[in-house]
Amino acid sequence: MMKRILLLGALVGMLNYCQAQLQQPAQKPNAAQRDMIKRGYGMFIHFGINTFADVEWSDGSIPVEKYHPTHLDPDQWVRTARDAGFRYVLLITKHHDGFCLWDSKYTTYDVGASPVKTDVVKAVSEACKKYGLQFAIYYSLWDRHEPSYKDQDKQKYVNYMLNQLTELFTNYGSICELWLDGGWDRKPDEWGVDQVYQLVKKFNPACAVSVNHTIVNEEGKRQPTVPGEMTADNKYYFQYFPSDFRLWDPKMITRFDKKQYLHKGQSYYLPFEHTICISDRLNWFEKSPQLPVRELDELEELFYWSTDNDNCLVMNVPPDQTGRIREYTALRAISLGKRLGLSIGKPLPKNGRFISALKPAAASSVYPDKNNKYSGSAVNDGNLDSRWAATDTIASVEMDLNPADAFNKVSIFEYKDTKELPDGFSQIRLPRIQEYAIDIFNNGEWQTIYMESKPMGDCKVVRLPRSYHASKLRFRVTKASAPPSLYEICVIDMK
Amino acid sequence: MMKRILLLGALVGMLNYCQAQLQQPAQKPNAAQRDMIKRGYGMFIHFGINTFADVEWSDGSIPVEKYHPTHLDPDQWVRTARDAGFRYVLLITKHHDGFCLWDSKYTTYDVGASPVKTDVVKAVSEACKKYGLQFAIYYSLWDRHEPSYKDQDKQKYVNYMLNQLTELFTNYGSICELWLDGGWDRKPDEWGVDQVYQLVKKFNPACAVSVNHTIVNEEGKRQPTVPGEMTADNKYYFQYFPSDFRLWDPKMITRFDKKQYLHKGQSYYLPFEHTICISDRLNWFEKSPQLPVRELDELEELFYWSTDNDNCLVMNVPPDQTGRIREYTALRAISLGKRLGLSIGKPLPKNGRFISALKPAAASSVYPDKNNKYSGSAVNDGNLDSRWAATDTIASVEMDLNPADAFNKVSIFEYKDTKELPDGFSQIRLPRIQEYAIDIFNNGEWQTIYMESKPMGDCKVVRLPRSYHASKLRFRVTKASAPPSLYEICVIDMK
Repeated sequence: MMKRILLLGALVGMLNYCQAQLQQPAQKPNAAQRDMIKRGYGMFIHFGINTFADVEWSDGSIPVEKYHPTHLDPDQWVRTARDAGFRYVLLITKHHDGFCLWDSKYTTYDVGASPVKTDVVKAVSEACKKYGLQFAIYYSLWDRHEPSYKDQDKQKYVNYMLNQLTELFTNYGSICELWLDGGWDRKPDEWGVDQVYQLVKKFNPACAVSVNHTIVNEEGKRQPTVPGEMTADNKYYFQYFPSDFRLWDPKMITRFDKKQYLHKGQSYYLPFEHTICISDRLNWFEKSPQLPVRELDELEELFYWSTDNDNCLVMNVPPDQTGRIREYTALRAISLGKRLGLSIGKPLPKNGRFISALKPAAASSVYPDKNNKYSGSAVNDGNLDSRWAATDTIASVEMDLNPADAFNKVSIFEYKDTKELPDGFSQIRLPRIQEYAIDIFNNGEWQTIYMESKPMGDCKVVRLPRSYHASKLRFRVTKASAPPSLYEICVIDMK
Repeated sequence: MMKRILLLGALVGMLNYCQAQLQQPAQKPNAAQRDMIKRGYGMFIHFGINTFADVEWSDGSIPVEKYHPTHLDPDQWVRTARDAGFRYVLLITKHHDGFCLWDSKYTTYDVGASPVKTDVVKAVSEACKKYGLQFAIYYSLWDRHEPSYKDQDKQKYVNYMLNQLTELFTNYGSICELWLDGGWDRKPDEWGVDQVYQLVKKFNPACAVSVNHTIVNEEGKRQPTVPGEMTADNKYYFQYFPSDFRLWDPKMITRFDKKQYLHKGQSYYLPFEHTICISDRLNWFEKSPQLPVRELDELEELFYWSTDNDNCLVMNVPPDQTGRIREYTALRAISLGKRLGLSIGKPLPKNGRFISALKPAAASSVYPDKNNKYSGSAVNDGNLDSRWAATDTIASVEMDLNPADAFNKVSIFEYKDTKELPDGFSQIRLPRIQEYAIDIFNNGEWQTIYMESKPMGDCKVVRLPRSYHASKLRFRVTKASAPPSLYEICVIDMK
């Protein structure tokens, strides 16, 4: 009798626990969300038919024979992820082109029909087990190959998805996250998101599910809210419900990110998952030409920006046509992990306190705009979308600080002129600032604490070997190839 | 009786110890030299009448009233040295202009006659005691102010020097080093170097003494031997005897620096003391305009290059017209010390093993020269004076390595076009290389281990998060504003 009661209690407990992993009105994260926040840092892997065509997107017509990695090595991908301190791997299982990285019963547009039949989903999921990482999948709603997608009966394609997701959720062990993409091609209610959600949660209640462009400005409308605007609770609405977290690839949140979002009059808690490329270009599927990777300073600050405040980051580290992550790319991820002291099981490191956020700021010159959108105050508004732009090349921006606040780090994000390359996704960025200095003001005197005669890169982190207090801080451009523009200057107190 | 014998023994011991600190034929360092090598890293301080005229040299005619620091703070200089991990301070007491930083009985061209009468030699020597650093002095032989200098009887000016050095060596506690400069203005035997040496050693046998341009190609001739050539023992000769160490401001030794030098048929051991500026320009006396400081990577590699192999480095960190070292300059020295883990009493850190030195190297293109002086083999000849120069902007240089040798660091010194500024000493340097990569060759395959789309600075240090073995290494320039040129590529195994 006692045994039965215990068993019943355990079952009720499990049910409660499962319930606790479904999206429900709440002011704090549920179990699935807490797990997700704790994971925090994942490696995104774009790999598929596009890799072999040097394109980001394709329309489902690239012949399956094009997929032919010469040295396919998913173990190397996950080994790299482990060495770099990632806690999970997020694998593209099917992109908009419809090509599947596993041998699906429901299509022939997959690895099973290609020259290299390795089940990549299986290989990655097993390597994750081997190296102690969790496994997550990306799956595109939008499918430009699958015939049922074009059927007037939208449920037919939903069934196709449910069948494929059943394959994915029953054959590859535990999956911690499902990242759905491409929702813009149909009306939000035509994707069967609720059916997908229920199916996934049936197999794995702990799996966190979301659809890209999760949040909109008005209930039932299509205009997604950008993460840079998400500074108020209970102001914005779900576009896709249920979703366990917010996505807006590849935008960044503000420093004042809020977590409460509305659906049918109820408020739900939603963390944000960022997506960035390790590439210095917008380069998701690896290209044949070698492209440079981002500098460590920028990666470090983007890591902190993305993972602080109970949010997450997935960084794309894609394999090339040989089927391996390029060594210089892998090394950059590993160097970042070493710099940050990342390892599985250890809490993620946090950035220091931003003592400059929202302090009054003014610039020596401002590019005119009727809404004053380029004003100096953009540099510490906590928003990486807004920026200060000067009219002169020799220009400065000055902000007040509280002299009681110590600081020992200054991170500066420079805006670059960008030029899209013919592939439509890659881009080059042209820096403007060539020489610059940082001054602080105390007791009636300006003091220069940093001076540099080399370009600053995309993000410059100035680490001061001692702490300072100041009533003002000034960023001064002494040489530039064009009027300078900055997204953000972060004055930080690192403990 | 026993007491007397003990006392006698102590006196003989002291005499022996004192003898052991004088320059004598030897194959290894004497006590004074061992102390010097152990110190290893000093802060050079240029300060004086020139500071107030924005010049490097002056002719002794600048009025003494021009010397007027507004916030003279020698304690800050030495505190900075302590915080930066320097072990000694080398102070300019008198430069070629003859202006003395102490109130000398023998001249009125000194601080005593100026508006700010602080005895700077005293203040610095006392701060050194306070902060636990050793104290060293620079004294110019050449004197463009002192009237006795022009006397036909050269001994008159020698006496002036002996008098001043007596002041310096009797009033300011222990002095660990005497750096003599300006010898080019007279014949070597007209300076009374032997008298100076005897005087100094009488007061302080442990003081290491040297004259700039210590070594020449032929005995009795004036042509100084550059440190980059000093790769053979017992080949070169003293110009100034005795000297306890070698000087050749501001040249760098080779990686194959030798220590045995000849005088009158005898061989003497001589370590080398390097002099570099923390400034990114050749900037000894601080100038009114703010000039940038060298990057940490370059400072780190120059530190290792200078202090490895039982040699020494003094780095110039000069105060400005306020009488304080500028904060951004001080911070750079402190950051270097933190990066290297320097602190007084701790042995200096060493660079790793150079596995690339003298390995066969060849370039894709070489700027033509009848002596082939710009060949690819210059990049690993251990000499920072020689350089590879290409004819094309897209160019590479490739070297053999021993696959048995591991490495995890690559340091690259780029040659820059330089332009002297009107002051005759400051200069600007123009980089050429804008994008580059490092490849290694193994098992018939090239693998890119580093790729960069930003300019490399004066010295780029690529730290690899794991060790590699390779049969070849290639440095590949993918974008440059002019045909690239490199002094050195150092492939290093850091433990």
